[in-house]
Amino acid sequence: MLNLPSKSLEQAVENLSKLPGIGKKTALRLALHILKEDELYAKDLATSIASLKLNVKFCKKCHNISDHEICGICSNPSRDIHTLCVVENMSDVLAIESTGAYKGLYHVLNGVISPLQGITPADLTIEHLIERVHNEDINEVIFALNASLDGDTTAFFIRQQLEPITILKMSNIARGIPVGGALEFADELTLGRSISERTNL
Amino acid sequence: MLNLPSKSLEQAVENLSKLPGIGKKTALRLALHILKEDELYAKDLATSIASLKLNVKFCKKCHNISDHEICGICSNPSRDIHTLCVVENMSDVLAIESTGAYKGLYHVLNGVISPLQGITPADLTIEHLIERVHNEDINEVIFALNASLDGDTTAFFIRQQLEPITILKMSNIARGIPVGGALEFADELTLGRSISERTNL
Repeated sequence: MLNLPSKSLEQAVENLSKLPGIGKKTALRLALHILKEDELYAKDLATSIASLKLNVKFCKKCHNISDHEICGICSNPSRDIHTLCVVENMSDVLAIESTGAYKGLYHVLNGVISPLQGITPADLTIEHLIERVHNEDINEVIFALNASLDGDTTAFFIRQQLEPITILKMSNIARGIPVGGALEFADELTLGRSISERTNL
Repeated sequence: MLNLPSKSLEQAVENLSKLPGIGKKTALRLALHILKEDELYAKDLATSIASLKLNVKFCKKCHNISDHEICGICSNPSRDIHTLCVVENMSDVLAIESTGAYKGLYHVLNGVISPLQGITPADLTIEHLIERVHNEDINEVIFALNASLDGDTTAFFIRQQLEPITILKMSNIARGIPVGGALEFADELTLGRSISERTNL
């Protein structure tokens, strides 16, 4: 480790390097940048980081981040309250929202079932999801989980519990060649799926 | 820009994305990571960032970062006080110190002369450097500036002012092929310099 000439700098580098994708060298570069900027910026940055944990709440309905008890999506009367999209993280909500292609509600699981990492259904918001589907007037549940072993396991686990509700439609987001993607560079799994799940013209 | 569901999150992303090399998407990833971690981490990170500006001082002799008025290098009695190494930034001091190959003192310019960016000699610590060479018992000044137009200009500007002191030795750090570097991948300028400035065996 670099031998830093200041305890405060060392502390800042230590804490910054705990952020994902930021090593000791980048952390040092960030700390030196903060040192060069005016005092107001360092203060603003520190305040906004501290207030993140203090002020950001999680929506009681969909577990998305929100400044209020119920988030802006769940409380929006123009959304379709009969469709529920199940996602792993709040960043997935942001990604889907930015497309503008979805007008229903969400349910954030806060992770996926992963025996290797010791994440069981009890660690996620699955129980609440089942409860919501039973109590709210939901017609369709869309699974928008990542196409990994853990994602597929989680979707399977939830599907099993929801199957007794015969009138409920369940769907997966489409897998295939990305728009603008070249066929020759696609992996076999994606290309295979895009052929077997081709859409009619 | 992403439409974030929380004002506090937006504020944090805004401030984090002002850091060098961190765009809006990475800033969001960092903010979501901080949200997931326990409260103590967010508090620690915020405190250490705020205390950076408050507690880190600059050495009155060499302008390096320090927790005290005079830094650990300047106040170390085992250092060679007759040799001065001129560097652009405090990160250069850290880099040279980590080699263990230099036992003299430093002088941090806090930048280089750059007419394009409006940085004049008055913005740097050049005047103090000239003063130090005159008042302290310095035998050699080593220029360890980056090999850019601005770096060369700055070295030239300082050299001109120090030339009247005839007993003073001035030197540049060696340029050449990095240790372990392959000749075929070196740029022409570096390879050319490594030949013209070859060392005797």
